[in-house]
Amino acid sequence: MRGLRYEGQPVPVYHEDLPVPVSGPEESLIRIGLAGICNTDREVLKGYRPDFRGIMGHEFTGVVEQSSDPAWIGKRVVGELNAGCGACVYCRTGREKHCLDRRVIGMDGKDGCFGEYMTLATHLLHEIPEGLPDEEAVFTEPLAAALEIPKQVHIDPDQEIAVIGDGRLAYLTASVLHLTGASMTIVGKHEEKLEAFRDFGKVTVKPSGSFELVIEATGSPTGLTTAMELVRKQGTIVLKSTYAGKTAVDMSFFAVNEVTLTGSRCGPFEPALNLLKKRLVKLPQIELYDLKDFEKAFASRAFKAGFRIG
Amino acid sequence: MRGLRYEGQPVPVYHEDLPVPVSGPEESLIRIGLAGICNTDREVLKGYRPDFRGIMGHEFTGVVEQSSDPAWIGKRVVGELNAGCGACVYCRTGREKHCLDRRVIGMDGKDGCFGEYMTLATHLLHEIPEGLPDEEAVFTEPLAAALEIPKQVHIDPDQEIAVIGDGRLAYLTASVLHLTGASMTIVGKHEEKLEAFRDFGKVTVKPSGSFELVIEATGSPTGLTTAMELVRKQGTIVLKSTYAGKTAVDMSFFAVNEVTLTGSRCGPFEPALNLLKKRLVKLPQIELYDLKDFEKAFASRAFKAGFRIG
Repeated sequence: MRGLRYEGQPVPVYHEDLPVPVSGPEESLIRIGLAGICNTDREVLKGYRPDFRGIMGHEFTGVVEQSSDPAWIGKRVVGELNAGCGACVYCRTGREKHCLDRRVIGMDGKDGCFGEYMTLATHLLHEIPEGLPDEEAVFTEPLAAALEIPKQVHIDPDQEIAVIGDGRLAYLTASVLHLTGASMTIVGKHEEKLEAFRDFGKVTVKPSGSFELVIEATGSPTGLTTAMELVRKQGTIVLKSTYAGKTAVDMSFFAVNEVTLTGSRCGPFEPALNLLKKRLVKLPQIELYDLKDFEKAFASRAFKAGFRIG
Repeated sequence: MRGLRYEGQPVPVYHEDLPVPVSGPEESLIRIGLAGICNTDREVLKGYRPDFRGIMGHEFTGVVEQSSDPAWIGKRVVGELNAGCGACVYCRTGREKHCLDRRVIGMDGKDGCFGEYMTLATHLLHEIPEGLPDEEAVFTEPLAAALEIPKQVHIDPDQEIAVIGDGRLAYLTASVLHLTGASMTIVGKHEEKLEAFRDFGKVTVKPSGSFELVIEATGSPTGLTTAMELVRKQGTIVLKSTYAGKTAVDMSFFAVNEVTLTGSRCGPFEPALNLLKKRLVKLPQIELYDLKDFEKAFASRAFKAGFRIG
């Protein structure tokens, strides 16, 4: 089969003769339809996962061809990334994605979805609702990451929320949070990018005032500085960005102002699929490439790029 | 009257002829009984509040002699530190202690309790329950600071809690939190100090394992490093320590592990008085000095030192 492997170089390697994977006892075999490129994939190419070797990618749609549970066969699906050991304190307490021995598709110990076929633990599958096209269903995983915020933090609709960032993560975050009815301000650096956020609330490059809840979704350490300037005393900052290295932070700021900082990562798939099915979330367009045009795809400056595989 | 003023020097100045203060329209005049020395007072002497000039101290017991509300006259009281403007978003939303224009006794714009008399906004007074001696009631304010933790964070009694620190703040914190029934581990640096914590849980200088809730109460930046090592993924760190300057912190740790950090400061007086009245909190002994022996008092290595004034 065709597939795009990370083999340690700064660019992925395109293959046409990879073996079709064989699904394990509790797994399913999925024929991939579409796959989305995430910033994490670009980080993998930069060496974010130095020990990983294998097919890249973790955002996908596909059809189940074989399964440990025959009820899944023929179904159109999306799937979660993290397969835990099933036995540790994290797996036993609903935190499988934090299992220390987990395997993560396209990143850690498991081939991903930038290939014609992929295997996945059957319990990580979610059926795509009828009528929802693959071009929208492929946003399930990043939308779930935005839904992790209301899963972790109580969103009071009678409050002012600031979202810092004008990229894709900020977009899906604003898209989810404006559904609460709360007043939203989106703080960006690029006026032209912010245009796309006008449906969600006020957009600005020069924020003022203070906010009970501030979502830091810039992907850069300077976002935290802005968040600390904007958050109200006893307010909450949700930190979505990950970046390498240490940052110099005035930690007394948190104690003195009783500010809460909550880190936030992958999220729940079912509410994401519900929102997609109900057309409640405005989505950016996905720009699709063939697998062998991976260089163009990774270099794309579209809000979202990906591969049409199946 | 006698009193101990901060006048900018590295040591306070003892006076015997200060004028008795005159209470304002919404205030009460309090004859001070006992006063406790807080680490914040030592920080004031080091220049923590460079613009402050006045009588130091903010932990006290006393008797009301004059009041805007005559019902208070003759009552034995403790009192809160922060008097807000009454009009801003913080004062209007139950966060008076975070008012940007607040006056703070012994620290900011208002004389404190290291003197024979002090005035205080009447709404900040709390009556000391009958039978509770001043030597115990003087712990109300630091105990309230420990009670700010369960005010901010849900304490699940079916979880393991670590308290980092072996000083007074850690002691009162452990003292309050062990009442929830949760399993407690106290992590210190001094085996001899940790002896006093044995009633609250397991004590150790070499912690292992992971904890859903970690309270950082060391007063030093290294405490946060230990807290980040001990907290479970999706767990919570409560940051009680304040220290000057910036600290190099791997902020991605919070996002990747979905850890929540909550800063915590002054707390509620009524539950503190309830716990003191019911004798549910084990207190350290307070070592009392005369005001003119302030040098000995500030140099005391007792778990808690203070002044017998009235």
